[in-house]
Amino acid sequence: MNKLQILITNDDGISAPGIRFLIDVMKDYGNIAIMAPDKPQSGTGHAITFSEPLKIKTITQTDHYKEYSCNGTPVDCIKLGENVILDKKPDLVVSGVNHGSNAAINIIYSGTMAAVLEACIDEIPAIGFSIDTYKNDVDFEPSRPFIKKIVQGIIDKGMPKDICLNINIPHTDNIKGIKVCRQAKASWKEGFDSRVNPRGENYHWLTGSFVVDDEGEDSDLKAIDRAYISLVPVQVDLTAYKAMDEFRYLEE
Amino acid sequence: MNKLQILITNDDGISAPGIRFLIDVMKDYGNIAIMAPDKPQSGTGHAITFSEPLKIKTITQTDHYKEYSCNGTPVDCIKLGENVILDKKPDLVVSGVNHGSNAAINIIYSGTMAAVLEACIDEIPAIGFSIDTYKNDVDFEPSRPFIKKIVQGIIDKGMPKDICLNINIPHTDNIKGIKVCRQAKASWKEGFDSRVNPRGENYHWLTGSFVVDDEGEDSDLKAIDRAYISLVPVQVDLTAYKAMDEFRYLEE
Repeated sequence: MNKLQILITNDDGISAPGIRFLIDVMKDYGNIAIMAPDKPQSGTGHAITFSEPLKIKTITQTDHYKEYSCNGTPVDCIKLGENVILDKKPDLVVSGVNHGSNAAINIIYSGTMAAVLEACIDEIPAIGFSIDTYKNDVDFEPSRPFIKKIVQGIIDKGMPKDICLNINIPHTDNIKGIKVCRQAKASWKEGFDSRVNPRGENYHWLTGSFVVDDEGEDSDLKAIDRAYISLVPVQVDLTAYKAMDEFRYLEE
Repeated sequence: MNKLQILITNDDGISAPGIRFLIDVMKDYGNIAIMAPDKPQSGTGHAITFSEPLKIKTITQTDHYKEYSCNGTPVDCIKLGENVILDKKPDLVVSGVNHGSNAAINIIYSGTMAAVLEACIDEIPAIGFSIDTYKNDVDFEPSRPFIKKIVQGIIDKGMPKDICLNINIPHTDNIKGIKVCRQAKASWKEGFDSRVNPRGENYHWLTGSFVVDDEGEDSDLKAIDRAYISLVPVQVDLTAYKAMDEFRYLEE
C-alpha cells in the first residue's frame, strides 16, 4: 500500500514549537511535506497573496520528508503545497498546533484554520489543532495521544464531504477526553490604545477583551473549560438556511 | 426621530468608484461615516492588524458626514469606525460596492464581506454589495433602485439576529429583480505562473480558474447568470451541525 502524503502548515511560522511538535506526531502516518510561512501570520484570516509573487525556501528535500517555507499566508501555503511542491493533492492536511485557542469566533480570524478551510474547499481531509494558552512555555505532550486518536480515526473512517475539523486543546496535564461541540457564541470587545508619536501624529494599537455570550453545555469553550479537547465539525457554506424565508419580501 | 448612523467601508480602497457610488446611494438614509482602506485590500479575508499600529487620515469631518481612510484591512476599518470614529455602534454597516463578484466561495476570501461579517459579530445589521464584473468601466446605476429597496427593507423590518447579507449584482442594464439564494458550491482551481528572476531565483504568481460544482437552481451563481441580484443570508457560526454525530466515535 502506498504511504499517505501529508501536508502540514500553520500560521505561527515554520520555526514555531507547535508545528515542530505536530511534525513529530505526524511522522508515524506517512510521507511528510511542510509548507509554512517564514514569519508569524496570526490573524491573517483567509488572506491570499496575488499582488506580489511568492518565493519558496527549501529547507529539507528527501523522498519521504520535504520541508519548505514561503513569504505567503497560511492559505497561500496550502495552494503552494498542493500545486507547486506535491504533484498531487495530499491525502491529509494538518495545521498547527496553533499557539492560542481558535475556539468560538476565533476561527474567523485564524490563519491556522483558514489553511484548513482552504484544504476543505479543495476536498482534502483537513484538521486544525490549537492549544488554549499564550504562555511561552507550552507542554504539548499531554495532547499527543489525543491528536493520534483523531488522526487515526479520520484515516480509518474518512472525513465527511465538505467538512473539516477545528480541534482545540486545553493546556493541562490531565486532558479528560474529546468532546464533539458546536462553535460558542462570543466576540472580541475591541478597544484601541491610542497614542501620539514624536511627530505629533495619532496612532492606534488594536487591543480587546474576549466576551462570551453563550451558556450552552455543548459549546467548544465549555468543553475546554472542563479540560476536554473540543472537536467542532466546520463547513465552508456560510448560508443561513433558516433565515432565507425572512427575506422573501424583497423578491416581490 | 434621530437620524440613522451609517458606517461605510470596502476593500477596494477609499477612492474606488464602487464606494463613491454606495456613499451617494446611502446619503438619503442617515448620517454617514466612511472608514475605508487607503489602498486596495482585495483578498485580505478576515485579516486584522495587531503587530503594527493603525493610522487614520481625516478627509472630511462634519456633523452629518465624516470620511476617513486608514492603513488597515476592511475588518480593521469596522473596528476603528465603531470604536475610534463613532461614539456608539452604527445602526447599519454597508460595504462595497465591490469590483468583482463575492458570490459562492468568494465570500471566504473577500475583504468586503469580512467587514460585513465583523459587523455581524458585533450585532450590527450589515450588508455587502458586489458587482459581477472586472471591467474598468462599470455602470453601477442600474443597481441603484435595488440597493435602495434592500436597504429600506432592512431599515423597516430589521435584520434577523446573527445574520448579515451578501448581495451580488449582475452587470447589466436589465436587472430582473432580487432572488434569495444559497451560496453556490465552487472553488478556485489554482495554478501558479512560475518564473525565474534576473538573479536566478524562482518566484510564483498566484493564478487560477473558477470551477463551479453546483447545478442547483437556488444558488447565487444561478441567479446572477439569469440577471437577478442574489441575496444570501450569511451566518458566522461555521459549525456543521448535521455532521456532529459522525464524530461521536472519537468521544469514546
